[in-house]
Amino acid sequence: MTTKRYESKEPELDVLYQDMSDHDLQPLWEMRGLLTPEPNPRTVAHRWSAKQMRALGERAGQLVPIDRGGDRRVLACANPGLGGAPYATSTLWAAVQFLGPREAAPAHRHSPSALRFVLEGDSVWTMINGDPLHMAAGDLILTPAWTFHEHHNPSDKGMLWVDVLDLPTVEFLEAVFFEEGPSEEVIPKMDAQSASEKLYGSPGLVPAGQAAQPSGNYSPLLAYHWADTDAALRHQADVSGETDVTVRYTDPVRGGDVMPTMRCEMRRVAAGTKTSAHRQSGTRITTVLHGSGRITVGNNEFDVEHGDIIAIPSWAWTTVHANPGVEDLDLFTTSDAPVLSALKLFREEWS
Amino acid sequence: MTTKRYESKEPELDVLYQDMSDHDLQPLWEMRGLLTPEPNPRTVAHRWSAKQMRALGERAGQLVPIDRGGDRRVLACANPGLGGAPYATSTLWAAVQFLGPREAAPAHRHSPSALRFVLEGDSVWTMINGDPLHMAAGDLILTPAWTFHEHHNPSDKGMLWVDVLDLPTVEFLEAVFFEEGPSEEVIPKMDAQSASEKLYGSPGLVPAGQAAQPSGNYSPLLAYHWADTDAALRHQADVSGETDVTVRYTDPVRGGDVMPTMRCEMRRVAAGTKTSAHRQSGTRITTVLHGSGRITVGNNEFDVEHGDIIAIPSWAWTTVHANPGVEDLDLFTTSDAPVLSALKLFREEWS
Amino acid sequence: MTTKRYESKEPELDVLYQDMSDHDLQPLWEMRGLLTPEPNPRTVAHRWSAKQMRALGERAGQLVPIDRGGDRRVLACANPGLGGAPYATSTLWAAVQFLGPREAAPAHRHSPSALRFVLEGDSVWTMINGDPLHMAAGDLILTPAWTFHEHHNPSDKGMLWVDVLDLPTVEFLEAVFFEEGPSEEVIPKMDAQSASEKLYGSPGLVPAGQAAQPSGNYSPLLAYHWADTDAALRHQADVSGETDVTVRYTDPVRGGDVMPTMRCEMRRVAAGTKTSAHRQSGTRITTVLHGSGRITVGNNEFDVEHGDIIAIPSWAWTTVHANPGVEDLDLFTTSDAPVLSALKLFREEWS
Amino acid sequence: MTTKRYESKEPELDVLYQDMSDHDLQPLWEMRGLLTPEPNPRTVAHRWSAKQMRALGERAGQLVPIDRGGDRRVLACANPGLGGAPYATSTLWAAVQFLGPREAAPAHRHSPSALRFVLEGDSVWTMINGDPLHMAAGDLILTPAWTFHEHHNPSDKGMLWVDVLDLPTVEFLEAVFFEEGPSEEVIPKMDAQSASEKLYGSPGLVPAGQAAQPSGNYSPLLAYHWADTDAALRHQADVSGETDVTVRYTDPVRGGDVMPTMRCEMRRVAAGTKTSAHRQSGTRITTVLHGSGRITVGNNEFDVEHGDIIAIPSWAWTTVHANPGVEDLDLFTTSDAPVLSALKLFREEWS
Repeated sequence: MTTKRYESKEPELDVLYQDMSDHDLQPLWEMRGLLTPEPNPRTVAHRWSAKQMRALGERAGQLVPIDRGGDRRVLACANPGLGGAPYATSTLWAAVQFLGPREAAPAHRHSPSALRFVLEGDSVWTMINGDPLHMAAGDLILTPAWTFHEHHNPSDKGMLWVDVLDLPTVEFLEAVFFEEGPSEEVIPKMDAQSASEKLYGSPGLVPAGQAAQPSGNYSPLLAYHWADTDAALRHQADVSGETDVTVRYTDPVRGGDVMPTMRCEMRRVAAGTKTSAHRQSGTRITTVLHGSGRITVGNNEFDVEHGDIIAIPSWAWTTVHANPGVEDLDLFTTSDAPVLSALKLFREEWS
Repeated sequence: MTTKRYESKEPELDVLYQDMSDHDLQPLWEMRGLLTPEPNPRTVAHRWSAKQMRALGERAGQLVPIDRGGDRRVLACANPGLGGAPYATSTLWAAVQFLGPREAAPAHRHSPSALRFVLEGDSVWTMINGDPLHMAAGDLILTPAWTFHEHHNPSDKGMLWVDVLDLPTVEFLEAVFFEEGPSEEVIPKMDAQSASEKLYGSPGLVPAGQAAQPSGNYSPLLAYHWADTDAALRHQADVSGETDVTVRYTDPVRGGDVMPTMRCEMRRVAAGTKTSAHRQSGTRITTVLHGSGRITVGNNEFDVEHGDIIAIPSWAWTTVHANPGVEDLDLFTTSDAPVLSALKLFREEWS
Repeated sequence: MTTKRYESKEPELDVLYQDMSDHDLQPLWEMRGLLTPEPNPRTVAHRWSAKQMRALGERAGQLVPIDRGGDRRVLACANPGLGGAPYATSTLWAAVQFLGPREAAPAHRHSPSALRFVLEGDSVWTMINGDPLHMAAGDLILTPAWTFHEHHNPSDKGMLWVDVLDLPTVEFLEAVFFEEGPSEEVIPKMDAQSASEKLYGSPGLVPAGQAAQPSGNYSPLLAYHWADTDAALRHQADVSGETDVTVRYTDPVRGGDVMPTMRCEMRRVAAGTKTSAHRQSGTRITTVLHGSGRITVGNNEFDVEHGDIIAIPSWAWTTVHANPGVEDLDLFTTSDAPVLSALKLFREEWS
Repeated sequence: MTTKRYESKEPELDVLYQDMSDHDLQPLWEMRGLLTPEPNPRTVAHRWSAKQMRALGERAGQLVPIDRGGDRRVLACANPGLGGAPYATSTLWAAVQFLGPREAAPAHRHSPSALRFVLEGDSVWTMINGDPLHMAAGDLILTPAWTFHEHHNPSDKGMLWVDVLDLPTVEFLEAVFFEEGPSEEVIPKMDAQSASEKLYGSPGLVPAGQAAQPSGNYSPLLAYHWADTDAALRHQADVSGETDVTVRYTDPVRGGDVMPTMRCEMRRVAAGTKTSAHRQSGTRITTVLHGSGRITVGNNEFDVEHGDIIAIPSWAWTTVHANPGVEDLDLFTTSDAPVLSALKLFREEWS
């Protein structure tokens, strides 16, 4: 019997509560904190240090092999507020994945959606349903729900990237499905450009034929390379004259977010700039690509640098202060905003 | 420190795991059951008996007063699979609410959406943003997200209904907001028909003026009375010749489900009929309005009668067998299907 | 050679214009009135008198038989501004159709959408894809694009209704398709209620099963009876306290207008009320159902009574003055507003 | 009196027809060709020769000045089937526009949407609401509905482009609005890249801030340069292995066509290839950018080369045969397909 048993000093009421518990019922009038004026997040603000993750990852690289029978060499960020669950926030999984020289992670697919944001290296190819996507630092690679995906590192150098998944959300909704890929070893044809990028990577231009129309519920453009993102940020800063600019990754055919459950954005805060405060309902994961600075989340202050991962709880005021110097602070953020928007629960405020 | 600490018999690995735990990281390769071939629901199939709920509710009615300073007299269904949480399924709250003679439940509003499905009585008025809606057995009353709602029973007889809320979902998303209503006592004008019903209750006809267009993210028709639902079921059975028919409650202005997070349907299984099996991703709450029979959910069989509440986990095969006799089995079901559909996670199958 | 030949008093230019004309080209700089500050409608404001239409229709009834080889007995309203075309406005066809005792109009279908608004009688059944819809005064019956439709009058009394079609629009777009129905005589089963009404005629309730979901691009509810429309008008006046109220006919499953090209509304102006002025882009056809009064369209004033049809050009200020007395003025209006809205060309203003 | 007067050899009927005509009514049963099995287009297949248009344009350049008080130097294509109207098809305007050295066309805006497709030159800047867009051969420039636009040629060389507008459609709908721009001479800042391109020209990346979100009903990307279009065609041919490929110009923020009334596509038929036949409802304008070949439209065959303009009527079977040799045939086509799609009148077939 797991139903919570309420207690009362009035004997009759106490007996009633025992009987209710016996029948898996609970008295609303005894509950506290069910409906709070503002969100009372379980997620806590937290920073995972790139230095620590790298050191632990290297030790894991020596001790844990990756092979066909094995699994991914991944360190999952476990938010201290979530009771030991391996989730970075209540709704999002975040982890660092290491793929050593000549290693490969075999193909599988699952109903949770995933993305890879590359921190270091330029030698891995991710295959999505057989289409090889090149990965290099600053690139965003999508591995959307129910697409077969595998990673190959044919080089002599290791690679390091951040995985973000909507796994906690899909698990909460009791909707996790999973399938192993075909067991034969596929040797990917390593093209300079994937079919996905060739078909959907020209600005404002998409294939017109029926056969080429994307059938999935996600962006048919699966790779967003750093050179394009960097240019878009630079141009936006140029046009707007602002020192705090953000680009959103979108579906080039249907518009809107790249996947139904996760919004991806890159924000550039110019060196020396302190932004105004902002908060939104739902949670976020931020990864530092370039630069350094201080991120304030509610009452927490985190000094951040390349590779650090920060969890931002719902409705927490957030401010970014980029260190002065030559390098701007580039922050890659994944949020569950498409979920909250679809359910009409999205709110945001600026101070 | 709450992060789970993995263990290994290899000393080096065990030290690594300790260090990872110290830094709120967890090794993916040690995790089991994260990605399962099919959903592995925490929700378990369960029935709450109307007889038990009524008996306990009557005892609570004698012991627990409802007044302005107090709260609702509500018994919450606590699913045995959810570790003591007061939730009927992973995503839905279900409860029975008793409102005694001359009692009132004061106004408040919250970001979770709610609905009331009436089991007995015909003497309560629910006020939504000041608009009085009459409640009687078989009626569905919506109290959508962020609408002020209050309940008044000016009669000498008690009332009994089922509350369903998306509270577990909104709480999971860290998006609960709440506000008390104005503290002065409002004496509702008890009309036979609310403004909501007058404006939006004619089939296929809506107000054309701008001022009358609904601004909320929910059906502007807030009450669906049993006579209409019964007629729609009868007519559909008549046209289709089927002994298993279902009507869906919809938004008369925009079409689609009545609220962004919950789908409401009434199903009529003719006396003596056994339906084919069906399953869907996401969870459901079913309440028996009329008739009796047996509902099979996975390996569980529940004999059901008027007022019983049944929790149906994700992806469990479900069959309904209506008892032979004069009375058809009428089942009111609320599901989280709009959530799964919006996130492209909805799947269903028939055997 | 039909290309317009521009002329010039400068000889060289005149030769150029001749050469241009010879090659089907025209000089933009000589054109006048191509881009006007406001719409310069070809449609003129016009009233067709019910008395005249009835008298002419009765004479036609004696002279023109309706049989399988023949066609509909229809008098088409020809707007004086449209150069002899049989169209009531630039975009809409309007006509009165007479169906004598024991007459029938055979089945056919076409890509233009049509509707019937009944002025007198209660003895005709329209079959839509085999589903019989009863027609009586004040009813709106849809015969959407590409549905087979036929009319049957099994009684001893004649019937009179108004047809409105989007034919000018579809003809303009070079998209008219047409097919005769099956040639065998079908004797319709005259039910009190059609399958369409049984499945979709309950307020806010629609069939949930896949088989019952409508596949067409139009409202699956095909008949809107006067009793419902009258009640909706009365209720809206009651709630709003206004003497000028309008209900819009909508698709109960998807929301929005009943057909992709035509908006249907019923407006009730209380006896003695003079409305404020309004104008909108696009054209409209208004038919008087009850009452009498004066309708001002631009500089034109029309005294109107039961059965009169009025053409309203684009962007013309329009005011309605209902005669004092016991009877309110009920006006049924069809517009091309869904077309202008879809193409982002809809504008409207109130004085 | 313009209403058509029908005649009959039966004296009584002939009198009836006279009386009907007197009251602006027409007998449906005498009408022929109103509802045809397939579209009976007024538009005829036609080719306007680039050589002729250039020769006539040069003569016009010498005779017709362009200045602030004047207008655009534009030769409008007048389809021989449209009774002398200056329209290339029933729904689309097409014309060639010449802007001489140091000439400018002043600012105005109108509810019809327009586009410019450049055939020759690289020295003109089009200003859209003050944003300067560079124009060169092969570029598509949008001047959407109700945006102020002006053209400036600061160079010593003339420019030549094709204008396509939805003017016939907007005029048919009686929805033409027009406004002159501010009369003061604005000297445009001639940037290499417009703000539009800087903000929306990166593949799959858009500004995230509210201020940068586009408010109009059209693509915020206003220029599509040839280098990108050419690359997209090359890549698609490469991925698909096809010799007949088409890219569609789209709105990078919302997806879908660039403007609500016109679809733009570029098709590349490899040298020597003969395509299969295709037809669609609605009309099209095709302009030859590169290569030469033969286009068959229904029973008409047109030999085409750079700069030729071809009108394609609704539902006419169309085949393209690119001449063998080194140069592929690149065809820019504008259609009214978004209109027909929005109104659910779009049909297409392949042989």
